[in-house]
Amino acid sequence: MEAFKKVKCKRCGVVKEGVYLPSYNLKLCLDCFQLFFENKTQKTIEKFKMFSKNDKIAVAISGGKDSTALAKSLKNLGYNIHLVHINCQIEEENYSKNCQETVEKFAEEENLPLTILDFKKEVEVDVKLAAKIASKEICALCGMVKRYLLNREAAEFDVLVTGHTLDDEAANLLSSLIFWREFLERQWPVLREEGPLKKKAKPFCLTFERETKLYCDILKLPYVKNPCPLRGGTYVFFKKIIQEVEREMPSSIIGFYKGFLKRKEKLGLTPRKENLMPCRNCGYLTVAEVCSFCRLKEKVKDYLASKSSMV
Amino acid sequence: MEAFKKVKCKRCGVVKEGVYLPSYNLKLCLDCFQLFFENKTQKTIEKFKMFSKNDKIAVAISGGKDSTALAKSLKNLGYNIHLVHINCQIEEENYSKNCQETVEKFAEEENLPLTILDFKKEVEVDVKLAAKIASKEICALCGMVKRYLLNREAAEFDVLVTGHTLDDEAANLLSSLIFWREFLERQWPVLREEGPLKKKAKPFCLTFERETKLYCDILKLPYVKNPCPLRGGTYVFFKKIIQEVEREMPSSIIGFYKGFLKRKEKLGLTPRKENLMPCRNCGYLTVAEVCSFCRLKEKVKDYLASKSSMV
Repeated sequence: MEAFKKVKCKRCGVVKEGVYLPSYNLKLCLDCFQLFFENKTQKTIEKFKMFSKNDKIAVAISGGKDSTALAKSLKNLGYNIHLVHINCQIEEENYSKNCQETVEKFAEEENLPLTILDFKKEVEVDVKLAAKIASKEICALCGMVKRYLLNREAAEFDVLVTGHTLDDEAANLLSSLIFWREFLERQWPVLREEGPLKKKAKPFCLTFERETKLYCDILKLPYVKNPCPLRGGTYVFFKKIIQEVEREMPSSIIGFYKGFLKRKEKLGLTPRKENLMPCRNCGYLTVAEVCSFCRLKEKVKDYLASKSSMV
Repeated sequence: MEAFKKVKCKRCGVVKEGVYLPSYNLKLCLDCFQLFFENKTQKTIEKFKMFSKNDKIAVAISGGKDSTALAKSLKNLGYNIHLVHINCQIEEENYSKNCQETVEKFAEEENLPLTILDFKKEVEVDVKLAAKIASKEICALCGMVKRYLLNREAAEFDVLVTGHTLDDEAANLLSSLIFWREFLERQWPVLREEGPLKKKAKPFCLTFERETKLYCDILKLPYVKNPCPLRGGTYVFFKKIIQEVEREMPSSIIGFYKGFLKRKEKLGLTPRKENLMPCRNCGYLTVAEVCSFCRLKEKVKDYLASKSSMV
């Protein structure tokens, strides 16, 4: 937890414990920071027409700082939220057990409804074995399964919200530009409902991770400090680069991401519309006949059958 | 200087001292590396129609690895070159003196014609004081003066070539994208002659700095190892980022830059054509009535007059 120094708050003018935010060249006391943080979340929700107070909102919560800050700020702003947690059954460092317990503690403290899903029950094997069976990177496979399950759980809700931050969105954008990927089409703060795909929103797309951490620390929310022990790869690398650029040139990353939002149409990077169709098995939208999740399930079934026949 | 290990050369098949180039996943012996390097330079020159064997070519040479490798490879490829060096009069670490002596040694060894210009004679003050007088960053001011002087010296040549590398071009591109700068228009491997602006070319736009360094080391060319003691700022930072990305994901930066070359038209980042007009004083093309160089000269004149009147 960050140690807070005394600052002269730009908002209330009082000299007391607070924070300095180089990205905005702004000093705020802890109370005014909370207001600043929740106001920005509210403004982002309105700006991108993400959802309203009448909507039933499913919040994907991992137990980390971002999704915890998201759930708390949405609750404080008066939204009707329901938490959905996926236990990924990562045994290293007791990680998934720790995450679930932290989310349960948070839900209890905040008196919020919580649904818990179990990766292993859904997929029959753990994330490491699933990645091996599917010959995919662990993070890519885990992300695919989580998106699938969250979308399914969100069926009875109006919108599914995730704690993706400005750091995440800018890292994704940078990676898309470095590799000139043509699929920026779905990179946007809100995605409309499309057949069985629920509406999705990222209320923290203009909020830095440093801010979600401060928010959790100031409000003393329970959250898991260490990152997933299995995480790695390109995505983590680009996030490190983004954070380095913002540290060196405060506010540059805000400009980078906002500039993209302004120019997306103009960029000429968006075409190549994917031809989505319903999965033959489950009805989920996919580019192939059978969706990735169902294909994974088939492969796992084959793998387990070959295992048991060997006994 | 890099210590060379034994490798099995992909080109000639012999096991001997050589290099591994992760960007191309290629092992080459030292002789074949030299061929590879010069072939790539030749192909780049042809691909972008930079110049021919009949052209009189001015090579801007600083004494560093990039421009030294450029001069040597162009000479080996049979081009008609003339070296132009600007002594920037940077006294720190004896830098500019060291650069000039290194260039003189190289020119003598290679029997190449050399013109030396003197920053202080041209501007009347040194680069640090000039930057202070003009209220500009040292690197920005030095670059502006060098571009002006090189263009002027190139008057009797067909083309001016510089040692800008893939690292430089990609860093420049990344910085343009992060800040969504609209002036990518002039970012191209070759710029056609335009009134008093000479044709300019960057034959190393597809060559990494690691390769120019290897070329200098293998051919034992004299070059200044330490970077300019005054250098710094955004440009250096972005180059560090580019090198970090290439180290983490070999060949990604080649794809990034080549992808830009392919997409430049499509990108929609190129319009806003600057309205260039001849400088009232010297005829150099400029966006203002008087060009930056002449404005600097005026400011220096005023500064020196006010100094002498104070005596």
